[in-house]
Amino acid sequence: MQNFHYNIPTQIYFGKGQIANLGDNLKKLSDRVLLVYGGGSIKRNGLYDAVAQQLKNAGISWEELSGVEPNPRIESVRRGVALCREHQLGAVLAVGGGSVIDCAKVVASGTYYDGDPWDQVLDSDKITKALPVVSVLTLAATGSEMDGFAVISDLSKNEKWGTGNDVTKPVFSIMDPEYTYTVSARQTAAGTADIMSHTFENYFTQEKGAYLQARFCESILKTCIKYAPVALHSPGDYEARANLMWASSMAINGICSYGENTAWAVHPMEHELSAFYDITHGVGLAIMTPNWMEYVLNEDTVWRFVEYGKNVWGIQSGTDMEIARGAITKTREFFTSLGLPATLGEIGIDSTHFDVMAQKAADGGLKYGFIPLDKEDVKKIFEMAL
Amino acid sequence: MQNFHYNIPTQIYFGKGQIANLGDNLKKLSDRVLLVYGGGSIKRNGLYDAVAQQLKNAGISWEELSGVEPNPRIESVRRGVALCREHQLGAVLAVGGGSVIDCAKVVASGTYYDGDPWDQVLDSDKITKALPVVSVLTLAATGSEMDGFAVISDLSKNEKWGTGNDVTKPVFSIMDPEYTYTVSARQTAAGTADIMSHTFENYFTQEKGAYLQARFCESILKTCIKYAPVALHSPGDYEARANLMWASSMAINGICSYGENTAWAVHPMEHELSAFYDITHGVGLAIMTPNWMEYVLNEDTVWRFVEYGKNVWGIQSGTDMEIARGAITKTREFFTSLGLPATLGEIGIDSTHFDVMAQKAADGGLKYGFIPLDKEDVKKIFEMAL
Repeated sequence: MQNFHYNIPTQIYFGKGQIANLGDNLKKLSDRVLLVYGGGSIKRNGLYDAVAQQLKNAGISWEELSGVEPNPRIESVRRGVALCREHQLGAVLAVGGGSVIDCAKVVASGTYYDGDPWDQVLDSDKITKALPVVSVLTLAATGSEMDGFAVISDLSKNEKWGTGNDVTKPVFSIMDPEYTYTVSARQTAAGTADIMSHTFENYFTQEKGAYLQARFCESILKTCIKYAPVALHSPGDYEARANLMWASSMAINGICSYGENTAWAVHPMEHELSAFYDITHGVGLAIMTPNWMEYVLNEDTVWRFVEYGKNVWGIQSGTDMEIARGAITKTREFFTSLGLPATLGEIGIDSTHFDVMAQKAADGGLKYGFIPLDKEDVKKIFEMAL
Repeated sequence: MQNFHYNIPTQIYFGKGQIANLGDNLKKLSDRVLLVYGGGSIKRNGLYDAVAQQLKNAGISWEELSGVEPNPRIESVRRGVALCREHQLGAVLAVGGGSVIDCAKVVASGTYYDGDPWDQVLDSDKITKALPVVSVLTLAATGSEMDGFAVISDLSKNEKWGTGNDVTKPVFSIMDPEYTYTVSARQTAAGTADIMSHTFENYFTQEKGAYLQARFCESILKTCIKYAPVALHSPGDYEARANLMWASSMAINGICSYGENTAWAVHPMEHELSAFYDITHGVGLAIMTPNWMEYVLNEDTVWRFVEYGKNVWGIQSGTDMEIARGAITKTREFFTSLGLPATLGEIGIDSTHFDVMAQKAADGGLKYGFIPLDKEDVKKIFEMAL
């Protein structure tokens, strides 16, 4: 097990009706906040009104940054920073999914930064201070509600990068699984792929000594495999939505990665897809993951695939390679069963940009992953996914 | 899944050499601390010197409360409170196992309490403020390094009760698995029984909807089953010590209990054994747990025992009752294999006090457990354990 510094300060109010904890707790942070949200679904489903009521009852005034994109853009961040400065706001309240929360985080840090917030996206060391961030989560996917990371795009440059810092970890998050009842089947499936991908990124490591963390990863994977089909079939199934929602946080808050020697591989590749084609992140992950697995499976890595096959999929017989391949097939079939596409072709992506995307993903640092990948490796994996 | 409020603020510095993080981080809390430790093993193994060096280098002065007992006594707490007040100390540093940390917590809260600290043991609501607590852990067992609980005894009254509050959660803990290399086989075994018992208390619940948490519990149990024998055989095996140590924290910090509807049963019974006979807590748990399992196994509870048998022990065939009974047998055999006694008789306990112990355990609140237990139930379980 590797050394680690465990630091998960975010408090969570989890369950039905937990919005009641928003106003008074937010008021302790500031009575002037920036309310960040997306395309307006929270106005249709009543959540906006519930949040507004909480703010009013607590005597909190607010400005609004709305229309945050599914792959949040730096332009939205800049607008938010300007609002925080102009109105001297003291906290950022994100109401939405991971994109909205990610945007809120960089708004929170950008407000204290002298230069353009894109600098902080390119270099997380430039994040040193941030307004307190609070979130009300509406989508089980990114885990942004309980970590310090943010992924921001500049589509004018076909760039999408992750950044983050301890200071952008939300102070608290409200997680009411009922808010996800109205999430579409496609977004539910993509969110599940995102949760599983975070878990895979932590699980597929050469660190054999972090046994407990590996079992935690398997716990999350089993949870996704059990409940995503339930949520697709019965969108209002509380147990399914609650387990998926909590899994989303636990997949990336550190519980699964502390003590591991992780270096993410599939996310950097998918970020290139999103940066060039603005696709749904989880869809890209579902397509790329089984192909990445096939590519990195070899005699040195098979041990972890065997654990995956046995402990997650219950494959008990066969040679190690057979169990490993069986597990990859199961993974592919599972994503397909959720209605997710299996190839880049299905979502209109061809090989046009593979060369530059592979270069950028490799430059982003794939040298230290489960097995190191260079540009040519990445290009081959893109080609396998066609 | 039940609603919950997740709040685990404790930071952890985990791994080799993490003592280097003690001085500077403690200095942020206070430059005058109470150093709490036990019987002096930290003086023999060099840890005392390392801690003293950290304090000196950071310019921290300290007073000492030493000789804290394995079942920490209220008299030690009172001495600590007096020292904190007399010397106007600003933080409490516990160096030791759970007993030392538990003692430090009630010293920390008692310093701000007008009455006798035993009041705070009997009624956790009387804990409202505490000096910051920091710990350096030397034993994988109680999880006290990452939660707010403390168990304190008044042997003059044969009383041992748990208390706790968010304010007594350590600000940070240093967890270096190498410090546990010198832990005796018996204490290693007892500590493992303690970790497993915490996990069982969270796992054996009638809440069927907290699927992820149940899998996390199984992860911890599997970790104990894998690594306790390794640590007994090879006391200096880092991987085993690290996994056991991290399991100890995760078993009780909330990760396994949030969203469950837990009500502990075996701990309250064991506390009576310790209160009357001052035995090692984990030894009492190892004796009581399989008997409690046998007693509460029935048609309503068998589902969870089946999950336990299948997922933890890999028992795949048989009727539900057969799998459940097989899992209980495995549990009993496992504790025995660690060298732990299987009966109360082996540790010199007879039925003399069963009546009063059963009454006190029942009064402590066993009405809401996995299955509710009254005095007569508890007495029968004590008798089964003879």
